[in-house]
Amino acid sequence: MAHAVVLLSGGLDSATTLAIARAEGYACHALTFDYGQRHRFELDAAARVAEALATVDHRVVKLDLSAEAGFGRSALTDAIDVPKDRPDDPAEPIPPTYVPARNTIFLAVALAYAEVLDTFDIFIGVNAVDYSGYPDCRPAFIESFERTANLATAAADRGRGHYTIHTPLIDLSKGQIIRRGMALGVDFALTHSCYDPDPTGRPCGRCDSCRLRLAGFAATGAKDPLPYR
Amino acid sequence: MAHAVVLLSGGLDSATTLAIARAEGYACHALTFDYGQRHRFELDAAARVAEALATVDHRVVKLDLSAEAGFGRSALTDAIDVPKDRPDDPAEPIPPTYVPARNTIFLAVALAYAEVLDTFDIFIGVNAVDYSGYPDCRPAFIESFERTANLATAAADRGRGHYTIHTPLIDLSKGQIIRRGMALGVDFALTHSCYDPDPTGRPCGRCDSCRLRLAGFAATGAKDPLPYR
Repeated sequence: MAHAVVLLSGGLDSATTLAIARAEGYACHALTFDYGQRHRFELDAAARVAEALATVDHRVVKLDLSAEAGFGRSALTDAIDVPKDRPDDPAEPIPPTYVPARNTIFLAVALAYAEVLDTFDIFIGVNAVDYSGYPDCRPAFIESFERTANLATAAADRGRGHYTIHTPLIDLSKGQIIRRGMALGVDFALTHSCYDPDPTGRPCGRCDSCRLRLAGFAATGAKDPLPYR
Repeated sequence: MAHAVVLLSGGLDSATTLAIARAEGYACHALTFDYGQRHRFELDAAARVAEALATVDHRVVKLDLSAEAGFGRSALTDAIDVPKDRPDDPAEPIPPTYVPARNTIFLAVALAYAEVLDTFDIFIGVNAVDYSGYPDCRPAFIESFERTANLATAAADRGRGHYTIHTPLIDLSKGQIIRRGMALGVDFALTHSCYDPDPTGRPCGRCDSCRLRLAGFAATGAKDPLPYR
């Protein structure tokens, strides 16, 4: 059985990506980052999703990208407000929830993990349609990282294989992602998407991530199972 | 004054790289990784070098790549013997001291740190002449990572600048690196290169790293100040 490393944030997209990898026949090794996020709810969600989708294992890598550690500079890791009801702004498509170089770091560690596990398949749930404009979610970035990965590693250098960064969601709308996840039996009640949940974990319904999720569910005609406040 | 992020392992190469960045006029932010190395001597060396070369700051990022954390698979992070007196072997140029995807991870975190600091200059002391054959020390890898960095980040996407991965040592022999460092006043007694020091930190003199270092000093005619056992 082929093995794969799957980046799992606990959100709707990564849960669907994991279900797709599994449906394609991969034994999945889920990788989650505890990177100094302002809340822990997505880490709990990642653990629930990994269990529900029967991953071979689920590792949580600690790497502190918070302001206290000298990083920060994002509404997800620093004392910066998460935008609510944000209108589209062509002059500034990248919102303050952008985390500097996050997917480069996540993919780099996933690459190390894949090399350790002797697998060449890495899945990431990036999407460049209904997304927040982050540059590290776009095809050009993924293609460039894949090239880099194949120059970076002993396994590729020895000709043992070619690393592939799988992005099964990259061209899908949020509605299509949700339909795909539902068809594969993903329980979206286990996932967490909100950038700014209340202290009990309930999503705000107004941040970019909630708005994209709610619009996606609206497009499918299904009801989002999460208890919005 | 221009600022730069400088990857600093505590070895001879990264100390010289830091001295070069400083001589080029950069205010230097040193970045060191506590990644589950089997010994702490290089972390101590990095702190000494950062202080001696008057960096603006020195951050130690913790990211556990040890076998206990599910990574390992290297003589530097796992229960694998460090080769001694290793002959050149054209059939297997990459020795077991290779750490999976290490420089990809280090550069990815350095990129995040550079974006946070609003600088576009990153220095890394890789060398592809007198080196251990690691693929992530070669020009093709560095060039590909640089391309990826400029597709990955909001700062580049907004046209605020272009990330440059500076590799001032990449084409130098070990002897040339040592001469360059000496000319810039680097105190090599502060550095640590050995992959397998004794419990007091004394270098073995027989691992690849010691052998390259000793041959480099021999080529210069200078004496390595370290107390080999």
